[in-house]
Amino acid sequence: MRIWHPCTQMKDHEKHPPVFIDRGQGIYLYDRQGKSYIDAISSWWVNLFGHANPRIARAVTEQLTRLEHVIFAGCTHAPAEELAERLLAVAPEGLTRVFFADNGSCAVEAALKMSHAYWRNLGRAEKCKFIYLSNGYHGETAGALGVCGDRLYAAPFAPLVVPQIEVAGPECHACPLGLARETCAAECVGGMEAAIQAHAAELSGVIIEPLVQCAGSFRMHPPAYLARLRQATAAAGCHLIADEIAVGFGRTGTMFACEQAGITPDFMCLSKGITSGTLPLSVVLTGDAVFDAFYHDYHDDKAFLHSHSYTGNPLACAAACETLRIFEEDDVIAVNRPKIAHLQAAVRQRFAGHKHVSDIRSTGWITAVSLAADPAAGRAFDPLERTGFRIYREAIKRGAWLRNLGDMVYFMPPYVITLEEIDRLTDIALDAVEAVLG
Amino acid sequence: MRIWHPCTQMKDHEKHPPVFIDRGQGIYLYDRQGKSYIDAISSWWVNLFGHANPRIARAVTEQLTRLEHVIFAGCTHAPAEELAERLLAVAPEGLTRVFFADNGSCAVEAALKMSHAYWRNLGRAEKCKFIYLSNGYHGETAGALGVCGDRLYAAPFAPLVVPQIEVAGPECHACPLGLARETCAAECVGGMEAAIQAHAAELSGVIIEPLVQCAGSFRMHPPAYLARLRQATAAAGCHLIADEIAVGFGRTGTMFACEQAGITPDFMCLSKGITSGTLPLSVVLTGDAVFDAFYHDYHDDKAFLHSHSYTGNPLACAAACETLRIFEEDDVIAVNRPKIAHLQAAVRQRFAGHKHVSDIRSTGWITAVSLAADPAAGRAFDPLERTGFRIYREAIKRGAWLRNLGDMVYFMPPYVITLEEIDRLTDIALDAVEAVLG
Repeated sequence: MRIWHPCTQMKDHEKHPPVFIDRGQGIYLYDRQGKSYIDAISSWWVNLFGHANPRIARAVTEQLTRLEHVIFAGCTHAPAEELAERLLAVAPEGLTRVFFADNGSCAVEAALKMSHAYWRNLGRAEKCKFIYLSNGYHGETAGALGVCGDRLYAAPFAPLVVPQIEVAGPECHACPLGLARETCAAECVGGMEAAIQAHAAELSGVIIEPLVQCAGSFRMHPPAYLARLRQATAAAGCHLIADEIAVGFGRTGTMFACEQAGITPDFMCLSKGITSGTLPLSVVLTGDAVFDAFYHDYHDDKAFLHSHSYTGNPLACAAACETLRIFEEDDVIAVNRPKIAHLQAAVRQRFAGHKHVSDIRSTGWITAVSLAADPAAGRAFDPLERTGFRIYREAIKRGAWLRNLGDMVYFMPPYVITLEEIDRLTDIALDAVEAVLG
Repeated sequence: MRIWHPCTQMKDHEKHPPVFIDRGQGIYLYDRQGKSYIDAISSWWVNLFGHANPRIARAVTEQLTRLEHVIFAGCTHAPAEELAERLLAVAPEGLTRVFFADNGSCAVEAALKMSHAYWRNLGRAEKCKFIYLSNGYHGETAGALGVCGDRLYAAPFAPLVVPQIEVAGPECHACPLGLARETCAAECVGGMEAAIQAHAAELSGVIIEPLVQCAGSFRMHPPAYLARLRQATAAAGCHLIADEIAVGFGRTGTMFACEQAGITPDFMCLSKGITSGTLPLSVVLTGDAVFDAFYHDYHDDKAFLHSHSYTGNPLACAAACETLRIFEEDDVIAVNRPKIAHLQAAVRQRFAGHKHVSDIRSTGWITAVSLAADPAAGRAFDPLERTGFRIYREAIKRGAWLRNLGDMVYFMPPYVITLEEIDRLTDIALDAVEAVLG
């Protein structure tokens, strides 16, 4: 095999060769034998409006014949300008500037660098540390791994990573205070507030995935936690970095997760859905206070240096502009609401009360089902059994691309899924679970 | 201004607003007033076959209607499989595996992580350090900045970066041994060999930009240096990482720079020209020895974990496949040779002997002209004068996008430039220099 696949033990492919995907259409992927798979996880949480979406395809095709790419230093172009305008129009108030990068990891790297360089430009270079939440995930380049609370990704590379400060996040699936996420006031935030206070002098910022830690086992927290975190960071004089790479663009039910808490972070990182799952692109949004700290005479050496060759790629920007046009013209956030409700209900209907289901949780389009050998006794499956992986294989057999996360099954389909397709997908998921667990 | 441009002091735009590029065609960029600019630097060294190239556009367009993207874990697709086959067919012998990422920085991050994890999987986790050359540049994410010898990019972010080991590289523009790059046997390599020996126990690898340090002032070294470095790293039991992001795909006159030294590195990072300047994509090529160290039973926890959402993006792979088809069908490397000779001669003809020219150097398509206040006395221009920047502005006025690097003018045009266009470009460059320096 010539290709080394990401996030994969390649030896697994001896038994299960990679599925050769030939084409995609709407929510379906088709292999070379013509078998279809519902893309239940939106191809790693990127696809919004279906595969080979004709509107997106047309926008990119038109751009291909006009200007496929140009250096983004000294130049600008229409797709980037339109995208910046459209992003800032829908982003939380106070975000006024758009910095471009190519993928989520690089957006996080740019935000961390920009945060520290802000303090440095203000003569406070000692503010260079970042707080992140346990179980958080922000990408896999070295800077992003420094704020990665998921040890799986960071531990093997420890000598290559500057360690940052880990603080326990909300544990709503088993609240130590005995409260419920739907009704609490984020009473658990005290530990985080204390950590921010304790580290304030050296703290550049706090980074969080608002509302849902996706790669980190789909832990979810209430908007109140975000609101309290915004207050605490502002009070301590450090930045709040909202990594909405996975949760942005409607995944949590609102355009951005931060909206649900009514907050504006100092930096907002966006990627994944930004191009409807078509092309790599990411942005960091920030406000005038940050921008102004870098806006100086050339010889003051305060410019922000962070470049990638393809920064501001016009094709990716064209896909992103069309994505935002679809949101606006098709009133996507409103149209999504009944679908979200149906998906959440369909999963509960099938999995609630199942003898191996320990928890079901939802935020917007994201619903996760945790499985355990004995949920009542809190006994997990033996990892050697690879229960989640076997369920994933069974779902593939049955025509759904339902990638497990450990012993967890989750749903994050494209927004164009219909109510009937939601029923079919959740039926397949239940069949796959029962095929493995009886 | 909503957009924060990379590698730019935004205040410069008060006097010089970004040029609004409306379209591109072949070697030309056109602004909204219809004025044309020769893209003398291939839009940050990425464009090979001209803007809006119809072959590349067609390949991407076809892919858009078939499969724009799919998760690359558990799946594969035709554009990635064809690309892997084509890359390995032209890469140095012994490179047998292709790992995908989105941009150059992330390819470097993946190579550094893979190098260290290789040793870790072999029970030698203490091998975690990297040697890099002074003036080297490998990208701007935190791991890449750790091996960045260009202080401009790394210094402001020092607390976010794990420092690696800097060793002086070749200084061929002013050889301390009094030798000439064209005829020497890399006698200067002794210091590097000694450093590798001294650090062998903790050394994971050595990273180098083969033949030309591009961002690092276009310092060039002979193939003999690479050959000696390959010997030294093999002897010391550490990896050689060849960062061919800027120099690969024909820039140095051969398909890859490593060919000129007849070596196979342990890792080769490629990006930029891989899609002919159309879309962000990068790869790390490596061999079986590395791959096998990760190929274990799942529960051994030796898989290589490094993912990006858009890893293996089919659209970018389609552009890259078409790029490699063009190389093959149009015999690009051979066709380029007389153009390269003409460009090198044209620059020398115009700039050699100029009172402010301190050095002219060429490797393949890359030719750099260093300027100084008094070359004979070794006196540079006062940085406050921004001489190079003013020349860049004059060249823009005259219809050439000739971005300076400090007080240096350089040429790295798309391969589709004609001999007449080379003459015109170098004429404009000389005019721009004379407009500023008299």
